[in-house]
Amino acid sequence: MLPTLEGKVAPRLLITMGDVAGIGPEIIARAWTNLTLLCRPVVVGDPEWLNRVIQLVASHAVVRTVQRPDEIEASRDVIPILPASCQDLSGVVPGKVSAAAGRAAYDFLCAAIDWTREGVANGIVTAPLHKEGLRAAGLNYPGHTEILAERTGTKEFAMLLSVPGLTVAHVTLHMALRDVFGQLTTGAVLEKTRLLNDVTRRLENRVHPRIGVAALNPHAGDGGLFGDEEVRIIRPAVEAARGDGIDATGPWPSDTLFSRAHKGEFDGVVAMYHDQGHIALKLLGGMQAVNISAGLPIVRTSVAHGTAYDIAGKGIADATSLIAAARVAASLCAGK
Amino acid sequence: MLPTLEGKVAPRLLITMGDVAGIGPEIIARAWTNLTLLCRPVVVGDPEWLNRVIQLVASHAVVRTVQRPDEIEASRDVIPILPASCQDLSGVVPGKVSAAAGRAAYDFLCAAIDWTREGVANGIVTAPLHKEGLRAAGLNYPGHTEILAERTGTKEFAMLLSVPGLTVAHVTLHMALRDVFGQLTTGAVLEKTRLLNDVTRRLENRVHPRIGVAALNPHAGDGGLFGDEEVRIIRPAVEAARGDGIDATGPWPSDTLFSRAHKGEFDGVVAMYHDQGHIALKLLGGMQAVNISAGLPIVRTSVAHGTAYDIAGKGIADATSLIAAARVAASLCAGK
Repeated sequence: MLPTLEGKVAPRLLITMGDVAGIGPEIIARAWTNLTLLCRPVVVGDPEWLNRVIQLVASHAVVRTVQRPDEIEASRDVIPILPASCQDLSGVVPGKVSAAAGRAAYDFLCAAIDWTREGVANGIVTAPLHKEGLRAAGLNYPGHTEILAERTGTKEFAMLLSVPGLTVAHVTLHMALRDVFGQLTTGAVLEKTRLLNDVTRRLENRVHPRIGVAALNPHAGDGGLFGDEEVRIIRPAVEAARGDGIDATGPWPSDTLFSRAHKGEFDGVVAMYHDQGHIALKLLGGMQAVNISAGLPIVRTSVAHGTAYDIAGKGIADATSLIAAARVAASLCAGK
Repeated sequence: MLPTLEGKVAPRLLITMGDVAGIGPEIIARAWTNLTLLCRPVVVGDPEWLNRVIQLVASHAVVRTVQRPDEIEASRDVIPILPASCQDLSGVVPGKVSAAAGRAAYDFLCAAIDWTREGVANGIVTAPLHKEGLRAAGLNYPGHTEILAERTGTKEFAMLLSVPGLTVAHVTLHMALRDVFGQLTTGAVLEKTRLLNDVTRRLENRVHPRIGVAALNPHAGDGGLFGDEEVRIIRPAVEAARGDGIDATGPWPSDTLFSRAHKGEFDGVVAMYHDQGHIALKLLGGMQAVNISAGLPIVRTSVAHGTAYDIAGKGIADATSLIAAARVAASLCAGK
């Protein structure tokens, strides 16, 4: 069960600092005023490090250490922070992989998950962590999603990508295009369609969001002339989803599908492979892109970029994606 | 050799009517004033049919039959037309396939090619023809391009797609995604890169247009982790193109490549497969999309849509793409 908001109170969102050697801490400090306009934010991280970046971005806000997310209310002048790791971060250098920063990022996330599951917060917005940092700490997770899934006991989950007006679920992601054919199954398309339906229902606050399912081949196979995956794999998934009461249609030719979705004809699109979805998302979204975890028992969004070690600690990082991630998380908390 | 324009005289462009049962004639009539602002247009087609659609779109222009493209000058009030087929079109019905309309469309195109090769016109802009109409007339060509290539004796040619700010060459097009892997060769990537370079040089009037070559796999293969086509096939083509003095770079991850091109970093993009290019083109261009024939000894552009038989003869067809096609053809004639 997702925690629901009573009345019109802004949701309490936990903002994890991520890998402190990355740009996470400074984008939180930079975005702070915006975050307080979108939600009741509480940082989960390292108070000392946050104090340092507050100066880096020339913020006048005061950092206040709290023991519970609901101890004090955030304001543009007050940043509540839950210390959530006993790692000594004094030796961590911005832009360098370290076991301490990797372990701390993991601790921040676990604490945020636990407080949210207890209902003390409504959702989580994560700053980026670094896979190598996790590995240096002996934690072999590819990223946030797997940690979230494991700690919440979730089997069917997906990372969705959202830009204003378009939310996309990918059936396959990080693999050679050649390997997509072996991974594309009716079950996988159906699972992503369901997860996308759940998220867009809340995000758009619409009982029956309109889900467009992309074809794999050009012209959606042109009646079997250019491939048969549409007939063999994708169409049966669309029919099964419709049987479940989901307003899914397709398979649609992907070139016109994204254009139609952009014009408002669809609330979400199921893409068959990485670049199919990402070409549209990058063109439409840029820094507005947000990752959404689908299938979890808690609301969680994330910036759609990495730790950006090359510019970390310089105070020049762009906080747009973090603000967008908080906005999307707040919408998800408010939706039904 | 492409005909060049002397001084700043607007180019004389031959506008072929295409299949008269489609929307070609009416979009020419509707776009007429715009066409006269972009070039010195001369219609190649059927005078009687054009007279009929003039009334359909409530134009006040007068149709004047000419025997040569340079006989009279076009104006917003005068539409010069070269009759170019002896087909009897009196039985042709808008929206219905017919051998007479198919044969006439072929005749219009052949006449336009011949006048342009003789240097009496600077280029050709084609309204859509219908493959089934051609077939009904016993002409087995998939479309304009093959007729143009055959009649001009061209071996290496390509259809490029252009929207304002982005021109794309596709290495593969109408085939199952699964079949792309067998068709993608270093030679094919290099050929399309060269053709795109030739066209963007004239279109952008830039000696060394910046050509971005797309990767096939997500993250451009991520250093060999997600497929090896980048290393085996695409990179050698980019290096060969650079050896020829072309400012080609890549292979770039396709999601960020189109976004970067849209922001002005590239003049043209070489896409590996249909949807990779078309997702971006449809999002950016819509009705502004134009087809450009590359590799021909003459300038030729085309609307990027079909005959739209379902709305033909109703006077409601949108002429945006035809106007865009004339604009691009005029730029190509003016470029070096």
